[in-house]
Amino acid sequence: MADSMNRNSSNMRREGANGNVDGRHSAVSTDDELLDIRTGALEHWHDSDEEETSKNLNSSSSNLMDTLDDLPPGIGQYEDFHTIDWLRDIARDRMRHRHIIKNKQDGIWEKVKSAHDAWSGWVCVLLVGVAAGLCAGIIDIGATWMSDLKEGICAEAFWLNREQCCWSVSKADIDDDYCLQWKTWSEIFGGSRSGAGSYVVTYFLYMVWAILFALLAALFVRVFAPYACGSGIPEIKTILSGFIIRGYLGKWTLLTKSVGMMLAVSAGLSLGKEGPFVHVASCCGNIFSYLFPKYGTNEAKKREILSAASAAGVSVAFGAPIGGVLFSLEEVSYYFPLKTLWRSFFCALAAAFVLRSINPFGNDHLVMFYVEYNEPWYIQELIPFVLIGVLGGLYGSFFIKANIAWCRYRKNSRLGNYPIIEVLVVTFVTALLSYPNQYTRLNTSELIRMLVGRCGPEDDTDLCDYKRNYSSHQMNETYLKSMTSSTVIGDGVYKALWMLALALVFKGIITIFTFGIKIPSGLFIPSMAVGAIMGRMIGIGVEQIVVANHDNPFFENMCESKQFCRITPGLYAMVGAAAALGGVTRMTVSLVVIMFELTGGLQYIVPLMVASMTSKWVGDALGKEGIYDAHIQLNGYPYLDSKEEFTHTTLASDVMRPRCARYGSAVRNDPPLSVITQDSMTVEEVEHVMKSTSHNGFPVIVSRESQYLVGFVLRRDLNLAISNALKLQDGIVYNSIVYFTNHVTENPNDPAPLKLRKIIDMAPVTITDQTPMEMVVEMFRKLGLRQTLVTHKGRLLGILTKKDVLRHIAHLENQDPESILFN
Amino acid sequence: MADSMNRNSSNMRREGANGNVDGRHSAVSTDDELLDIRTGALEHWHDSDEEETSKNLNSSSSNLMDTLDDLPPGIGQYEDFHTIDWLRDIARDRMRHRHIIKNKQDGIWEKVKSAHDAWSGWVCVLLVGVAAGLCAGIIDIGATWMSDLKEGICAEAFWLNREQCCWSVSKADIDDDYCLQWKTWSEIFGGSRSGAGSYVVTYFLYMVWAILFALLAALFVRVFAPYACGSGIPEIKTILSGFIIRGYLGKWTLLTKSVGMMLAVSAGLSLGKEGPFVHVASCCGNIFSYLFPKYGTNEAKKREILSAASAAGVSVAFGAPIGGVLFSLEEVSYYFPLKTLWRSFFCALAAAFVLRSINPFGNDHLVMFYVEYNEPWYIQELIPFVLIGVLGGLYGSFFIKANIAWCRYRKNSRLGNYPIIEVLVVTFVTALLSYPNQYTRLNTSELIRMLVGRCGPEDDTDLCDYKRNYSSHQMNETYLKSMTSSTVIGDGVYKALWMLALALVFKGIITIFTFGIKIPSGLFIPSMAVGAIMGRMIGIGVEQIVVANHDNPFFENMCESKQFCRITPGLYAMVGAAAALGGVTRMTVSLVVIMFELTGGLQYIVPLMVASMTSKWVGDALGKEGIYDAHIQLNGYPYLDSKEEFTHTTLASDVMRPRCARYGSAVRNDPPLSVITQDSMTVEEVEHVMKSTSHNGFPVIVSRESQYLVGFVLRRDLNLAISNALKLQDGIVYNSIVYFTNHVTENPNDPAPLKLRKIIDMAPVTITDQTPMEMVVEMFRKLGLRQTLVTHKGRLLGILTKKDVLRHIAHLENQDPESILFN
Repeated sequence: MADSMNRNSSNMRREGANGNVDGRHSAVSTDDELLDIRTGALEHWHDSDEEETSKNLNSSSSNLMDTLDDLPPGIGQYEDFHTIDWLRDIARDRMRHRHIIKNKQDGIWEKVKSAHDAWSGWVCVLLVGVAAGLCAGIIDIGATWMSDLKEGICAEAFWLNREQCCWSVSKADIDDDYCLQWKTWSEIFGGSRSGAGSYVVTYFLYMVWAILFALLAALFVRVFAPYACGSGIPEIKTILSGFIIRGYLGKWTLLTKSVGMMLAVSAGLSLGKEGPFVHVASCCGNIFSYLFPKYGTNEAKKREILSAASAAGVSVAFGAPIGGVLFSLEEVSYYFPLKTLWRSFFCALAAAFVLRSINPFGNDHLVMFYVEYNEPWYIQELIPFVLIGVLGGLYGSFFIKANIAWCRYRKNSRLGNYPIIEVLVVTFVTALLSYPNQYTRLNTSELIRMLVGRCGPEDDTDLCDYKRNYSSHQMNETYLKSMTSSTVIGDGVYKALWMLALALVFKGIITIFTFGIKIPSGLFIPSMAVGAIMGRMIGIGVEQIVVANHDNPFFENMCESKQFCRITPGLYAMVGAAAALGGVTRMTVSLVVIMFELTGGLQYIVPLMVASMTSKWVGDALGKEGIYDAHIQLNGYPYLDSKEEFTHTTLASDVMRPRCARYGSAVRNDPPLSVITQDSMTVEEVEHVMKSTSHNGFPVIVSRESQYLVGFVLRRDLNLAISNALKLQDGIVYNSIVYFTNHVTENPNDPAPLKLRKIIDMAPVTITDQTPMEMVVEMFRKLGLRQTLVTHKGRLLGILTKKDVLRHIAHLENQDPESILFN
Repeated sequence: MADSMNRNSSNMRREGANGNVDGRHSAVSTDDELLDIRTGALEHWHDSDEEETSKNLNSSSSNLMDTLDDLPPGIGQYEDFHTIDWLRDIARDRMRHRHIIKNKQDGIWEKVKSAHDAWSGWVCVLLVGVAAGLCAGIIDIGATWMSDLKEGICAEAFWLNREQCCWSVSKADIDDDYCLQWKTWSEIFGGSRSGAGSYVVTYFLYMVWAILFALLAALFVRVFAPYACGSGIPEIKTILSGFIIRGYLGKWTLLTKSVGMMLAVSAGLSLGKEGPFVHVASCCGNIFSYLFPKYGTNEAKKREILSAASAAGVSVAFGAPIGGVLFSLEEVSYYFPLKTLWRSFFCALAAAFVLRSINPFGNDHLVMFYVEYNEPWYIQELIPFVLIGVLGGLYGSFFIKANIAWCRYRKNSRLGNYPIIEVLVVTFVTALLSYPNQYTRLNTSELIRMLVGRCGPEDDTDLCDYKRNYSSHQMNETYLKSMTSSTVIGDGVYKALWMLALALVFKGIITIFTFGIKIPSGLFIPSMAVGAIMGRMIGIGVEQIVVANHDNPFFENMCESKQFCRITPGLYAMVGAAAALGGVTRMTVSLVVIMFELTGGLQYIVPLMVASMTSKWVGDALGKEGIYDAHIQLNGYPYLDSKEEFTHTTLASDVMRPRCARYGSAVRNDPPLSVITQDSMTVEEVEHVMKSTSHNGFPVIVSRESQYLVGFVLRRDLNLAISNALKLQDGIVYNSIVYFTNHVTENPNDPAPLKLRKIIDMAPVTITDQTPMEMVVEMFRKLGLRQTLVTHKGRLLGILTKKDVLRHIAHLENQDPESILFN
């Protein structure tokens, strides 16, 4: 991971620094502002000791102010792989906001700035939505074209895909399934369209194209943006929980991921582009946020935009704006104020609207497998739906376990050193095995569309090979429809069932090896495909059982006669897709809403709900984590899950560093706590403390003898303040005493004192050593803390960081606490 | 408000006490449990000073344990009109949960109990959903029947409403609009169906029935459950934010509200039953939660059920399960973990499913005004949609201001003493003015249905009086449809427009006086009606403009010819309804989703979004609060809004009590902080401290001289512990020293010491005096605090309660801080 900080991060840092101008601006007048309020509305403040209060006020808020004011640009930015401090960032934003409100009276220009500030959130999400819609449209079109390229080319205009190529010709010209404009490779090279020779040529070229596409995708990822591989959702979850990964959402990643996704999908691998859409949209979100300093320079605020962007990603992936917002809320986001909900919805809608205008599939729908059923379902069918749910849950658990085991093996063995070869091998196997089976040869989205569709009278595929009664041509449409969809089975269906069973096994296994290779890959679509195959097979089975027992009272209401039973195997496929996806990702509400938006009606919400609930319960019984959380853990990201409950009875004193310092004995040889005293350490001593540790900050206490907590100072601030003072301030030498108090005892014989009152945070969050860890975890989650100080009767005992919490949780769960990286 | 604690609250207290058995159970074995863990998984604990650690662990968690163990039943219950402590309640629930997990090994019975516990949340929401669906069905049926009763009766079976009455007869018997089975009152009393005499008789009886119904509703509310009046949403918001109002969700309220709602709707008043459905569903939630001790005895957990119940309420009100969940999330709930989201969805779906099975409107839809449009809309139409949004926002602001002003007048004048007379006067005026106008005479839901519908070829109402070309009967259906919906206007439409204008003014004004009278009343429906009337009028206007300028290039794509322009005034009505509702309630995502579920298609989501966004922006520009928040403030409920940002720069030291104690001068004559020392006060002194103040709890400090914070003790616990000790423990007298420490110096000459270490909370949440209030507010909101202690360098300075925060906010907003009641 570290090998990818290079290009992108330096890039982003520059952008960040530019944006900062505004941030510094806002700090300048905080002093006046405070005085304003004092002399203004809050008269009662005058009652108190004026002098003191005013000193207090100034000095207290100066923590925030000075971090913005005194320090060089780049403040508010964090180091790579560090955790952000939500409270501090949000406070900074509020201050900026107050400043703008206050300045509003100062003329037209300030008013315009204020209006710009108020609107910028909306403008930003609008841009993000439009960009996400555009990206999705381009990727959809490109992927369709390249997928078709594997089989042939449009003779007259190579830039058209098969469907577009055949649009221009009239129906009459269409011969069989193919139109004459569309040349298959065998036609071009061998001259014939069918026959064994043609099959071999096509097969061979199919494989060549697949391997070429996969190679290109892998090379792009390797060369331009290593972060573009995978689905990106685990990393985005981690980033949204308050972690910095520079370049992960940069423009190189965006470009590489978009192109890589088209190539990977076209290579016919068992992966989807729906998950990576979330990553692409988040990249758009990140990039556009730099246009608005309010978001670009504030990591906490930026995450509001990223939440909206991830909603837009799902919105374009499934044509489901409401589902997208719920996905962002449920699965991805960490800090999700209600204001963001409304904006996310707007963003998701804008993205869907743009994609719809592009109309990539030429059918007015945003997804290839959108269906609009009208067939009813019956209460008895809940039994097979529950069964599908159980199978979906089992598959999900199996998939997660197997995929994680394989990824762990890759990580720990030499296999990890040959990512491109791995991609090529997987592609070779996939292409070799998937071409002979018509169901796996299809693009996965098209396969799902076929499976969830119903058999109309015009369908003559194997899957729809039902015996029909062609004699009664005068029957009305509804009758015809109901007949063709549920009559006696033909041989084709048996053949289709066999092929589907093979496809199920193949897809189920190859996806395990595909998800995790170093190209962009999502697993919404492969999971749904597995579920849909399973569901369709069960659907056909149920159908035949019902047909065979049509006079059984249990099935009576479903059948008009032996030939006409109203069962929709396509609905079973849809339910199966939901169940498998639910089993793999453990999504709940968002899954049901996405499927509801895909099926276009409230009618099927009960079957979908039943299957996804069952699937989640079965899956959770076999292992609590969804695939994304499992990957987060595998990679050791510092993600404090807000869904898992902390159920242990440990106390803060068991987790803090140093362990149990109050009893005098440092457990596990923890070094004693590095502290700074408020008015008795020299510059040299302070620098020594900093050099001897690598902590990000130090508690400030009254004195060594009376360890009462005064405040907290960040290493970064301290470092800068001391080096600046040594350089610029007269009389400051290594022997100067560092004062963090207001009252400085100046002695003419001593060197000039260094006053650093301004850089300390006088309001660090503290807890007592007796605080139960469940409450500590709650505080970390809800307040977005980076660290908290532990006290006992006012005395400082230790410090507890997010990493300590994560390690503690890993330890309690019998995992290796050292697996948690970074912080 | 206080006059209604009577019956219901005593009732609920009893239920609460019963449920507590389980709560006490769970506490018993916490000691063992802790030891278990110590000797088990966490080996590293052994490294530390064993003796000390074990003491620590036991004593620390004992806070929670003992509050459950030592105290009489009723613990965990709060006093009426008190704020709950979320952290404490959630900790209690986790402990209970751990206990059950641990006991699981102890045999079959414990396993069953554990399974019951795991399922109880789902079972409970299922029951709540079913109950809410049933209540809604009964109320819908009852209200329809009683509404029809105002105009006539079914001769053969009085229990049928008009529609049902006319079902049984064949179409041929239907004469005009009426079927012969259905007798109007004029027919029964006067013998004739039309004519001036008949009109007078019907008018008179209409008014008599209306006044009778309203009187009954008002009497029911007055006698059985004063809490049943109004919509209930402001109070439910307050309850969900962690406030106790006993009896507000009791069974008497449920019954009275259900019956009262039927009566109030039937009385023809300008109110709806949709808002109160939320209250009814919440009552169901509260009642069923007592079946499950996990929820019934824990106020924080109970609120999870109530959140789900309010989602079910909206789900049945609008047939919108997803919208209901989002309403609960956005508008009503305060603490909404994701687990609850999933359960709420289940609950909402169950309710919708049950209601659908009841099928109260006989049309397979859950709401009277469900529509399924297919007409397209054009991008140019966004201009009138924005206009509708602006008008909706203006109306919303006007309504809120006027309604609040009137309610304040009622509250502060003698008017408030005559609630029943007020109801009768409002009903009299409403009935008198609404009968002559056919649009106001209709049930409000029916009016909305009519307005949002489109004019089919079969409609011959005034509203649909378009000039038609009857000569071409052979034209196909689509053509006919498009023609009839947009051709040249007839006289009837002009008449309809006049009547609608009158209805608009009437509804707009009377609703101001209706919302707030002492009967159950919601304002979703009246607001939507006002918006729909406005929208329909604008829609007809736009239609005529387009027809008149059909050859203008701007409108060209909308018109086939002069006669056939594709504008759907019904869609404008729908958009208007959304805009007005948005202006009044300031809902956002949930509003759009509800309207989307009402219109049954993603197609109209953009117009709805545009109108509701505009409406919210315009409304917010004129006054930030929605009607519910305005009523919360009017009534002084202690509700800490989680949406409003706190933007001031005050510090904790400016808000805490006593004010600025650190400077020695008590500002505003605040009494000094009441504290208890850990080992130097006698029982008598402690009792004196308790008697001289009314605080709910007291900080415990090291000693008067060294005011370092040790912990926090609740008045309730302290009271009980002391009185128990005086009664039961040997040697405890008024001179006994009270010890909150482990080390007790026993002196044979002194009276026996009273050891109260167990009852103090060793982990109170503390902040420093320099903490900005914005952070304090954030902590109160996110952690659900009841109070926090303020320290300076470890020394205790003061205390800051939720009420102090609310008062401070009120003060900063130039409102009367004393308006905040309770706490």
